[in-house]
Amino acid sequence: MTGVADHVDGHRLWSRLMELARHGARPDGGVDRPALSRAEAAVRRQLVAWAAEAGMTAFTDAAANLFLRYEGADPTQAPVLSGSHTDSQPTGGKFDGVFGVLAALEAVQALHDAGVRLRRAIEVVAWTNEEGGRFAPNFTGSALFTNRRALADVRALVDADGVTMGDAIDAILSGDTDVARREFGLPVHAYLELHIEQADVLERAGVPIGVVSGIQGTRRYRGRFLGQAAHAGTEPRDRRRDALLAGGRAIIALDARAAQSAEDFRFTVGMFEVLPGAPSVVPEEVRFSIDIRHPDDDLVDAFDADLTGILDREAHPCVAEHHQIVHAPSITFAPDLCARLFRNAEALSIPALGVLSAAGHDARELSYHCPSAMLFVPCRGGISHAPEEWAESEHLTMATQILATTLVELAEEE
Amino acid sequence: MTGVADHVDGHRLWSRLMELARHGARPDGGVDRPALSRAEAAVRRQLVAWAAEAGMTAFTDAAANLFLRYEGADPTQAPVLSGSHTDSQPTGGKFDGVFGVLAALEAVQALHDAGVRLRRAIEVVAWTNEEGGRFAPNFTGSALFTNRRALADVRALVDADGVTMGDAIDAILSGDTDVARREFGLPVHAYLELHIEQADVLERAGVPIGVVSGIQGTRRYRGRFLGQAAHAGTEPRDRRRDALLAGGRAIIALDARAAQSAEDFRFTVGMFEVLPGAPSVVPEEVRFSIDIRHPDDDLVDAFDADLTGILDREAHPCVAEHHQIVHAPSITFAPDLCARLFRNAEALSIPALGVLSAAGHDARELSYHCPSAMLFVPCRGGISHAPEEWAESEHLTMATQILATTLVELAEEE
Repeated sequence: MTGVADHVDGHRLWSRLMELARHGARPDGGVDRPALSRAEAAVRRQLVAWAAEAGMTAFTDAAANLFLRYEGADPTQAPVLSGSHTDSQPTGGKFDGVFGVLAALEAVQALHDAGVRLRRAIEVVAWTNEEGGRFAPNFTGSALFTNRRALADVRALVDADGVTMGDAIDAILSGDTDVARREFGLPVHAYLELHIEQADVLERAGVPIGVVSGIQGTRRYRGRFLGQAAHAGTEPRDRRRDALLAGGRAIIALDARAAQSAEDFRFTVGMFEVLPGAPSVVPEEVRFSIDIRHPDDDLVDAFDADLTGILDREAHPCVAEHHQIVHAPSITFAPDLCARLFRNAEALSIPALGVLSAAGHDARELSYHCPSAMLFVPCRGGISHAPEEWAESEHLTMATQILATTLVELAEEE
Repeated sequence: MTGVADHVDGHRLWSRLMELARHGARPDGGVDRPALSRAEAAVRRQLVAWAAEAGMTAFTDAAANLFLRYEGADPTQAPVLSGSHTDSQPTGGKFDGVFGVLAALEAVQALHDAGVRLRRAIEVVAWTNEEGGRFAPNFTGSALFTNRRALADVRALVDADGVTMGDAIDAILSGDTDVARREFGLPVHAYLELHIEQADVLERAGVPIGVVSGIQGTRRYRGRFLGQAAHAGTEPRDRRRDALLAGGRAIIALDARAAQSAEDFRFTVGMFEVLPGAPSVVPEEVRFSIDIRHPDDDLVDAFDADLTGILDREAHPCVAEHHQIVHAPSITFAPDLCARLFRNAEALSIPALGVLSAAGHDARELSYHCPSAMLFVPCRGGISHAPEEWAESEHLTMATQILATTLVELAEEE
């Protein structure tokens, strides 16, 4: 049955990647494709069209997750699921997310081309809002599917233009033609996700495939520094409550705290909005995000314990407020699935290395719902979330061959 | 002739201030009225209507400055000019700028009510874009009038939405009815500007009127910190070029440098835009403003000399760029005019104090063109450029009485 790998068409996979990169293309070669945007709607329509060519049927749900089902001999059995996401960061690249969706589609296309019909259905999935760039927090599509978030909370999220996620979901769903709705939380036999590594462990090791052992723990916060607007030319130094200076002191102190934690502790303030933002006005407010990650939950928790004290101390004479929006402890993927991926890589003579994921993925959410695992491919220089993001076609093809082989095995299981 | 002060109607002045504050009103009681916005166009129409009631004629120019002329017995003589501006900061109040325009209008209305016709014309003026909140740099209307800026440069300025100032000016001018166009740089006999103090010297001294001796020197800059976008979860600390951390270090170092300069040295970074601004992306760029001010030009110049070194040192491993957009040395107002204002205050039994302006005003530009001076009134707590900005009606009336008396004297001069 491993012969299905021979039907994987690396050229078709690559040309589809390049074709989808045109939706939301940036002038610098990158991709800016916010969740539920027109660009993502165009990608969605294209995926449904390609899936139809491979004999698949499209489904969606109240999160606007997209499922493309390749029916099995026994439709009552839980399907094998594989995919990723199609949204990007504002400065995103051509591979993050969309590769995982197209790899799963290519694997099914290979089955279709080989005329293979399996016991269980295989479904290709594109989860909504993996990135959280437009609607924070992220992973809302997979977290709704696994019933780890409430729909009403997610629909109430608001983007920078004041659009609710509920309205954005409804807009996308209203564009669906012949896409049946289904419930959240349907049983899944196993979940596999392919993704670029977003680090350079594989590249430096010269190995084309990473079998991902787990994902490091993350906490994310939103907060504000509150000061007082005042005239830049007249307000005396000793009376100023400059929210920008407060914020500057705080992020530098937090970065120093992160540096003490561990060499590989990640601390990022990606959002930092200064209001009113006028050159002649002392800033009255800063709205910020904080993102911390490490494989050792104890280090993440220890940073969390220090956070309030550092913010309060450095913010003075301004006031700091914050609240946690994401707490995702580190997770370990299903050992049996990981072992199977190593075995199938070896059977195809493809070198593979065990790696840890520093980034979050929808597979984290799915790991609470069914046996889940991931494969990584190298990305050049470890760069992602940037227009320079790049992966080699050869590596993408190899990962898709392992995926196709493994999907066949899983779909034939009792 | 000082009897004109008796015709100043403080109640009318106050009710007009409150009426204009409705255009661009913020929910918090403040005013957000960008230069050349619809809200400012509405104010402009109202001013023209009120001026017509006082027997005045409206003129404008290619900067969209608004002149309301109360004709003199000898129209060939250079007019006496008085006014201020009607735009506000995004977090502005009800008094900054618009008080100076309405005070001049009230003084002329008092002349009209008293049936007084003088030798020279008196013109009430509202200068375009004093604040620079929408189009930076500021003072473009008065600087075009005095031919200290070029029209083509000003028309090419762009707001945050990509609208050029040229298009915004044309849009305002297209709404004018019965407003004749005139040239820049017409001769002016003298210029007087009334304004809230934007500091608390008068309030603490318990004196209702400040005669302004001059304006402190200012330099303004725009710049960028350039780093590298990267994934928040994966990019190692030693490879990050985080533009936000670079910017945070730099503004804290510059603030410390400012603190060493002098107790009353003003340093403000009001604009600080972090891009792409996504919680999961290491910031790749920060766009910032710097505003420094002090009455002693040497201190301002010394800070300027240190600026590049501090930015470069603190930005590392990012890159800093900056350029100066405003250099306004400190100025001294016409001593004769200041003496006259003190004398007329005394004649009206109104206490007055000599003060220095920490903020820039259009009177600085006019001081290069004709004898110019200013009167300040206290503002509560010294707070301005904030919704809490407040002045007492009694003080506004007293300043307007001094203005009316002084305008009459100046307009009767040879």
